[in-house]
Amino acid sequence: MSRVLYPGRFQPFHKGHLKVLLKLLDEFDEVVVAVGSAQEAFTCRNPFTAGERLEMINNVLKSEGVGRDRYWLIPVPDIRMPPAWTSYLLAMVPVVDAVATGNPHVAYLYEWLGLRVLKLKLYEPDRFNGTLIRRLMCSGGDWRSRVPGVVAEYIDRVNGVERVRRVCSSAC
Amino acid sequence: MSRVLYPGRFQPFHKGHLKVLLKLLDEFDEVVVAVGSAQEAFTCRNPFTAGERLEMINNVLKSEGVGRDRYWLIPVPDIRMPPAWTSYLLAMVPVVDAVATGNPHVAYLYEWLGLRVLKLKLYEPDRFNGTLIRRLMCSGGDWRSRVPGVVAEYIDRVNGVERVRRVCSSAC
Amino acid sequence: MSRVLYPGRFQPFHKGHLKVLLKLLDEFDEVVVAVGSAQEAFTCRNPFTAGERLEMINNVLKSEGVGRDRYWLIPVPDIRMPPAWTSYLLAMVPVVDAVATGNPHVAYLYEWLGLRVLKLKLYEPDRFNGTLIRRLMCSGGDWRSRVPGVVAEYIDRVNGVERVRRVCSSAC
Amino acid sequence: MSRVLYPGRFQPFHKGHLKVLLKLLDEFDEVVVAVGSAQEAFTCRNPFTAGERLEMINNVLKSEGVGRDRYWLIPVPDIRMPPAWTSYLLAMVPVVDAVATGNPHVAYLYEWLGLRVLKLKLYEPDRFNGTLIRRLMCSGGDWRSRVPGVVAEYIDRVNGVERVRRVCSSAC
Amino acid sequence: MSRVLYPGRFQPFHKGHLKVLLKLLDEFDEVVVAVGSAQEAFTCRNPFTAGERLEMINNVLKSEGVGRDRYWLIPVPDIRMPPAWTSYLLAMVPVVDAVATGNPHVAYLYEWLGLRVLKLKLYEPDRFNGTLIRRLMCSGGDWRSRVPGVVAEYIDRVNGVERVRRVCSSAC
Amino acid sequence: MSRVLYPGRFQPFHKGHLKVLLKLLDEFDEVVVAVGSAQEAFTCRNPFTAGERLEMINNVLKSEGVGRDRYWLIPVPDIRMPPAWTSYLLAMVPVVDAVATGNPHVAYLYEWLGLRVLKLKLYEPDRFNGTLIRRLMCSGGDWRSRVPGVVAEYIDRVNGVERVRRVCSSAC
Repeated sequence: MSRVLYPGRFQPFHKGHLKVLLKLLDEFDEVVVAVGSAQEAFTCRNPFTAGERLEMINNVLKSEGVGRDRYWLIPVPDIRMPPAWTSYLLAMVPVVDAVATGNPHVAYLYEWLGLRVLKLKLYEPDRFNGTLIRRLMCSGGDWRSRVPGVVAEYIDRVNGVERVRRVCSSAC
Repeated sequence: MSRVLYPGRFQPFHKGHLKVLLKLLDEFDEVVVAVGSAQEAFTCRNPFTAGERLEMINNVLKSEGVGRDRYWLIPVPDIRMPPAWTSYLLAMVPVVDAVATGNPHVAYLYEWLGLRVLKLKLYEPDRFNGTLIRRLMCSGGDWRSRVPGVVAEYIDRVNGVERVRRVCSSAC
Repeated sequence: MSRVLYPGRFQPFHKGHLKVLLKLLDEFDEVVVAVGSAQEAFTCRNPFTAGERLEMINNVLKSEGVGRDRYWLIPVPDIRMPPAWTSYLLAMVPVVDAVATGNPHVAYLYEWLGLRVLKLKLYEPDRFNGTLIRRLMCSGGDWRSRVPGVVAEYIDRVNGVERVRRVCSSAC
Repeated sequence: MSRVLYPGRFQPFHKGHLKVLLKLLDEFDEVVVAVGSAQEAFTCRNPFTAGERLEMINNVLKSEGVGRDRYWLIPVPDIRMPPAWTSYLLAMVPVVDAVATGNPHVAYLYEWLGLRVLKLKLYEPDRFNGTLIRRLMCSGGDWRSRVPGVVAEYIDRVNGVERVRRVCSSAC
Repeated sequence: MSRVLYPGRFQPFHKGHLKVLLKLLDEFDEVVVAVGSAQEAFTCRNPFTAGERLEMINNVLKSEGVGRDRYWLIPVPDIRMPPAWTSYLLAMVPVVDAVATGNPHVAYLYEWLGLRVLKLKLYEPDRFNGTLIRRLMCSGGDWRSRVPGVVAEYIDRVNGVERVRRVCSSAC
Repeated sequence: MSRVLYPGRFQPFHKGHLKVLLKLLDEFDEVVVAVGSAQEAFTCRNPFTAGERLEMINNVLKSEGVGRDRYWLIPVPDIRMPPAWTSYLLAMVPVVDAVATGNPHVAYLYEWLGLRVLKLKLYEPDRFNGTLIRRLMCSGGDWRSRVPGVVAEYIDRVNGVERVRRVCSSAC
């Protein structure tokens, strides 16, 4: 049985994340999705609560027909001590064989601990990245085409666009 | 759709927990199991990592035939600020309708925040409680009959009895 | 008896704050002024200690003839976990009926908890805001006319202008 | 103008505390009462929130006829780093001339920082101490005669006895 | 070049510690002594500051003729998240080949991370242990013969016995 | 015996630091070098672990012929509470007579505590500063001439340039 850890903030979960996640589900028996900065919410950089992010990802994988026993959804608060954060995270999840990340900082930390690291190639990072999508939500641009349909629905249901506009007002 | 939050430390998950959890699964569409003191491990009071506890509970519910989409398993580190911990926890999980707890401290905290609290009656707490079960593991007593079979298997696989004995040595 | 919570950083307390505070004192029996980021001091963004900020506000309200039993002055350190911070703060102050804030982030957090939120209209925010006033102190501009007279006196007494200049040097 | 810092947990505020506080009010122009462990509530050791403790003390001093401008009431969360806690606390309160404490641990910490420390003689500590009073509340003993009348009233209003009984159940 | 990590609280550094440390200095080129609970001081369990403990150990090794380039003295504050603490500590010290510990909790944590662990046999733990030595200081018993001479001198210089007596009063 | 505290981040240790440190070694019997932000590593602003920074500084002082008993190397994690950080740091190091710093924020904090502060004049800060040197490493500029030779060797040995390039990628 093989298992990979896939950490991210997912503010919000977009099509780039989905592409990577489906690929990991092809290659591993199980994927542990770690939803980072879980203690943050209602800020411009982290508008959605961890709970909302868990639900978004769960809805997407359900709509993609991925069995619920193929993935774990784990919220992880920051501890602002990078080397400590790595083993902190490892202790919070079922045992994994590798860590998949596109973030060189995270990659270094896990290599330093001696773990196997899969360095992800991000999928069209210029189109699919959280900062850009939040900015589009803020400015009335086309953010919908960058996230899976069920994520757009979820965001509408929680009035996510209005939320992002208000908490990012000075940055819009 | 109804959802209830069920927090606990589950060191280890025993038959009293299972009885309560199955009852909550009867009454609610989904149960969010919050595995507390998630940052602790390899101590006498918290011998198992949060990841191990997640796996134990998942194995039990699978063996009981509970569908994976009926429950969420969420590790939650302590923050040692009780009033803050409540909303911290609420932000980390999908929206819930109530909190189920047998712990009066936790009940007070959520009532103080205005949440609906189900005060659980513990199931034979003299036989099924974590402190007693860890002590039995320590002293060579009959701990196996107090936990679901798949939990006993899991504990054996990770050499849990030896672990408890060593980290509790002075308290055995 | 009605009571409202009014959180802010007050670096320093200026005429915009005073306008809002006097209005809240008209509408409520008591105002709980929560002095945030209380653990910060001697930085460019937070040059004054919480203790100094408490004294500034107390001096202003005394000079305005507001009775000491009409307000509470409570320093509150950041805990960098926004959803937890809200209930943390509620537990540290006498029970309040509402929260008054001009900050959409804070408003969302308290609404999420189910509290009554008064969304404040800031008073001439282009003239009366902390960032601008600190910049004027730094550059030798006219900061005095933007703060109540007793605040200017207090700042002079603790050599506040020199302090801001030195700790903000690179940003002056 | 002279000012003294008087730290304590005040769970609850009792006649021993009052005796000391009135004496400090005789000797200093102002007393800064620091309500410690402010982040704790609804536990057996810390049943009352910081906000409740602030109100209890305020009610007592009002009933004693002490002017509201003679004292400051400041909640202070623990930071569990004793040497850091001292300067943390000093930064959160108006400047003080001395610290008054009956706790040798606190006395050492402030002496180590170079502050003037008044070593308090506790007033009949065998009759007036928080642990004992909470135990009496728990067991149905006579706790009322050990706290000022207005504190007893306040505790009744928030159902404090029932609270202590429930959260201390195993220790009653 | 070989290097071993030797963590402990050293409250105070006693002859059992010295025996172990000299043995490690025989077997490794360098020893990294990690002085734990460094944020604690002036409590009954941790009467001495981290700085004082560093000096005690340095004085002892000097008097034993151990070259200053054979050992590192590193204070390490607790972070109360055991699995995180391990990698936190590894990041704070020069790279080590192994960890030497007599504490099974610490041994498990490092084994869990994949490190080489030397399980130390404590040297006459019934005679040489910190708890006992602090109790002897408290009760006027013979603590001097249990610590190296230069440690006794150091403790006398900082009035350590009086300190222990006062902060441990209720436990003496 | 005189001792001075010299705090810094040393990312990396450069010739400006060395100049200051040698001067302090001329004026004091011992220098306590406090390596700050010790909990950070593998980020653009803090690429090197605390352990690596300790080794760099130790190698430099050895190559300069400074006796190992003339200096202490102490890693200090941030606690993000500036006034608390000062006494936290003082408790972690041997007793010092003064603090030497070129940082006005740090100078204010120690003056506020009543300590003697030496305000350092930085040595050619336009040439020798960490931000600039990391930027040069990133862009392929001449960083080597700005750090002592043994530091350049150390950085090469740990592939420091590649590390800085990867973790700073967006800022290069």
